[in-house]
Amino acid sequence: MLEVNQNQLSVTEEKIAQQVLQKAYEREISALMMNVRARANSLNEIEDLWDLHDLLSMKRYEIDGKYAYNSSSIVFDLANLVKEKWLTLEDLQDLPSEMLSKILALARM
Amino acid sequence: MLEVNQNQLSVTEEKIAQQVLQKAYEREISALMMNVRARANSLNEIEDLWDLHDLLSMKRYEIDGKYAYNSSSIVFDLANLVKEKWLTLEDLQDLPSEMLSKILALARM
Repeated sequence: MLEVNQNQLSVTEEKIAQQVLQKAYEREISALMMNVRARANSLNEIEDLWDLHDLLSMKRYEIDGKYAYNSSSIVFDLANLVKEKWLTLEDLQDLPSEMLSKILALARM
Repeated sequence: MLEVNQNQLSVTEEKIAQQVLQKAYEREISALMMNVRARANSLNEIEDLWDLHDLLSMKRYEIDGKYAYNSSSIVFDLANLVKEKWLTLEDLQDLPSEMLSKILALARM
């Protein structure tokens, strides 16, 4: 059983984790902007507009929740971002090795 | 006092009114698409994305209500579209003259 909630991060480690989270956030926002731009440039009918609205509604809700730093869930949060391919192993290399192992184990599940 | 709710439109007149409504609808949608395209192409930060989302939320709600044909409110609805400049006098010229007068009087209010 992984003790994912019991990691005690130092201030420095928390800062690193926040930076990693921020990197994923910037990537996801940047990809969303590209997607929105491409969809906007190929709008043909009213349904395309409302599909774009639905996409933005979903993404706004999702992103609002996903990138709030929370020390008790950061291991899970980063593992999900690895699964979703917003983070690579390289992005995580400055994290404490025990935390890194937990993240990678969770990301493989 | 304008008797705006008492117009008895023939089937042909209702059809003309619906076509006028449709014309305004197409213009507003087309303008909205241009606006969305322009905003999407100048997205710089996350707030621009959420502003675009807010615009689409507002417009979707507004457009859903505004263009549902309703014989008891069509005179008001067309007057509002004249006020908002989605319709011109020329667009209304095939409507019965009494109805046209009421629309123009309401649009001036």
